[in-house]
Amino acid sequence: MNATQLDRESLHASLRDPLLGSLGFLNEVMARYPDAISFAPGAPHPEFLADLDIQRYTERFLDHLRDEGRTPDQARRLLYEYGPGRGLINGIVGEALNRDHGIDADPNAIVITVGAQEGMLLVLRVLFRSAADLLAVANPCFVGMTGAARLLDVERVAVGETAAGIDLDALATACREARREGRRLRACYVAPDFSNPGGARMPLATRLELLALAEREDFFVLEDSAYAFTAPYGSQLPPLKALDAVGRVIHIGTFAKVCSPGARVGYVVADQSVGDDGRMLADEIAAMKTMVTVNTSPLCQAVVAGMLLQHGRSLIELSRRKAERYQRNLDHLIGALDSCLGDVRSRRVDWNRPYGGFFVRMCLPVSADADLLETSARRYGVLWTPMAQFYLDGGGDRQLRLSCSYLDIDQIDAGVRRLAEFLKEEVGV
Amino acid sequence: MNATQLDRESLHASLRDPLLGSLGFLNEVMARYPDAISFAPGAPHPEFLADLDIQRYTERFLDHLRDEGRTPDQARRLLYEYGPGRGLINGIVGEALNRDHGIDADPNAIVITVGAQEGMLLVLRVLFRSAADLLAVANPCFVGMTGAARLLDVERVAVGETAAGIDLDALATACREARREGRRLRACYVAPDFSNPGGARMPLATRLELLALAEREDFFVLEDSAYAFTAPYGSQLPPLKALDAVGRVIHIGTFAKVCSPGARVGYVVADQSVGDDGRMLADEIAAMKTMVTVNTSPLCQAVVAGMLLQHGRSLIELSRRKAERYQRNLDHLIGALDSCLGDVRSRRVDWNRPYGGFFVRMCLPVSADADLLETSARRYGVLWTPMAQFYLDGGGDRQLRLSCSYLDIDQIDAGVRRLAEFLKEEVGV
Repeated sequence: MNATQLDRESLHASLRDPLLGSLGFLNEVMARYPDAISFAPGAPHPEFLADLDIQRYTERFLDHLRDEGRTPDQARRLLYEYGPGRGLINGIVGEALNRDHGIDADPNAIVITVGAQEGMLLVLRVLFRSAADLLAVANPCFVGMTGAARLLDVERVAVGETAAGIDLDALATACREARREGRRLRACYVAPDFSNPGGARMPLATRLELLALAEREDFFVLEDSAYAFTAPYGSQLPPLKALDAVGRVIHIGTFAKVCSPGARVGYVVADQSVGDDGRMLADEIAAMKTMVTVNTSPLCQAVVAGMLLQHGRSLIELSRRKAERYQRNLDHLIGALDSCLGDVRSRRVDWNRPYGGFFVRMCLPVSADADLLETSARRYGVLWTPMAQFYLDGGGDRQLRLSCSYLDIDQIDAGVRRLAEFLKEEVGV
Repeated sequence: MNATQLDRESLHASLRDPLLGSLGFLNEVMARYPDAISFAPGAPHPEFLADLDIQRYTERFLDHLRDEGRTPDQARRLLYEYGPGRGLINGIVGEALNRDHGIDADPNAIVITVGAQEGMLLVLRVLFRSAADLLAVANPCFVGMTGAARLLDVERVAVGETAAGIDLDALATACREARREGRRLRACYVAPDFSNPGGARMPLATRLELLALAEREDFFVLEDSAYAFTAPYGSQLPPLKALDAVGRVIHIGTFAKVCSPGARVGYVVADQSVGDDGRMLADEIAAMKTMVTVNTSPLCQAVVAGMLLQHGRSLIELSRRKAERYQRNLDHLIGALDSCLGDVRSRRVDWNRPYGGFFVRMCLPVSADADLLETSARRYGVLWTPMAQFYLDGGGDRQLRLSCSYLDIDQIDAGVRRLAEFLKEEVGV
């Protein structure tokens, strides 16, 4: 074989899977139907991007650095130089996690990452060093986590998910089966507050049971908190990390939804001890990060920190207005579905009613595949995401995901009307 | 074993190697002797960070987006949203690479990465899918490449380096030996223009021979151009990618030195065809990037693009003043060494005389290890980098690296005087 004309099959077998193919297809369909109303992307609402002021937030962070005793020149240089691998804004982030979410995070236990995605990759790479180790994921699962696991050749085990989160009995069974095969369930990935795409939320009792199971069966819990901020005010449940007394939980967060995706800033809290010299898992993750991105752009960290400082150093304050918008959108989407399709609900079509997050999941009586999406886009001007790509075991082919995060109320209304017409005409619901 | 108290040995065997240990040690020594003159870090000179103006460059890029036909609102939103995985500024970067360096880079053949580091990781991950495949690297080698290879469990083969770059006879031998063992030399990593830490520069004839060898032996050449801009004006040699008629070269670059490390923006040019549908290797790399960092921060891309636009869309114009500063520093460092240690040169101590780059390599008659560095720092107030960490085969223990990039002329003078005193008193040169 001549390597110049690369052999796709032999070279990229692990890339040539349905996941990447379908994501590419989705983008391509969206590009071909720019006027369609799209329930596909889980992007932030444009209103929150319009009033971002990089300069103001950067200056706010520079003020903070000067308040801490740095000269103006020292402060400015921190924005442009290589910085510490673990991050520049760990203290501010840790303080907010502590105050808002009860996560007692030493700044040294935090690594600031290029979005939650890099955090997932780094955590997997540090935890998984044996081919005998397995990663359990709730099924359906966020594609970023399955993608990172695939990049690193980490084997996944799919565990069912209900509206109350990952099925703990099935998870316990997966642990036993792994042991029986001489393997080990090394970690379990969950998003306890409104999983993407499932919309599950784990009740407090389930959280405590998961932690007890992790301790009993000796695995780590990888907690993704991306959508936790969307819980209606006053109804937040404590994150797993705040309930974790024995170091079972590694907490992964992102500022993509509460600040801006373009900042590409996330974080990992990993305070587990890795020896008797005071080193923490976060040190290993920071060291590993030098081989992936060296460090997270201090420019981007400055924008995020400035936003936090501007909002009283509180994640809740920073996200309050956004949380309200997304709750309103989600409620409105569910209401519009009830109104337009309520008469046929549960017979031929059904949807869940998540309490937060960006997504509603819908079940059809037919396959929600690329052909159906094409018809939906071309003839009815409405787009959605096929759910099969989120399933590890070939399930979900009769499901679709509806995202409401970046639409306005009247777009949601119009989109659901189109969707209802499409379903009644083409699917016969 | 209880996983909470992680077992460092079993978990992190691949991390617990001398490289990470010595990097950590170096940072630790630097922190303990803040007043020492440090020839250790290859950081940009502070004068180039002082006059950076994020706001101005961002506005310059927004102007450009509006010139291309976007509304002000559309342009601003591009900075805050998730962007295309392959990047937002590919056209501007490709135009500059073409004009300045003769690299004919279609925007779709470019992926904008989080520094060159992410580029290296992605390229390795896309090319190396079989345990039989080997990566050849010039020895000594940049730790970012060996680190990325280790993260992905890509096996390295060390090939000697002279002042004229990687030893082509040894490389050809490595190809044959790999084949004899049923393996394959899949790619070879080189920095033809002033390698870090070796300081090698590959003559034009050697470049052409390397490309011919790559074609004959069927491997890819991974070209790192980080220090190419430091070549004295008018004496630049064409990059391997510009000489590559058959798609053997993947070109990896960074804006860390010519713009700012804090921007964390690099790029990969990978125009190799990967099938008959027009897909390129860059498409595979961009797809893989969605599992590492999703995309490179558009905020950071905007700053870099704004700087390029502000400098006539030319990489050479953008880096001219920096190149002159680093040439001056390097010449001055070599001159200071000649002046302070010339009388003993070649007998007990020796150093190379690179034509560009940030680094001089020095050979001692004793081991340049942590103890010696400690003595150098404590008693003489001068720091340097032990070279052993750059060697794959346990070599280089009697060598040290001197970086001159971020020092002023008088610091270089004072530092070399301290170094000379240290070497005469402690090493007996």
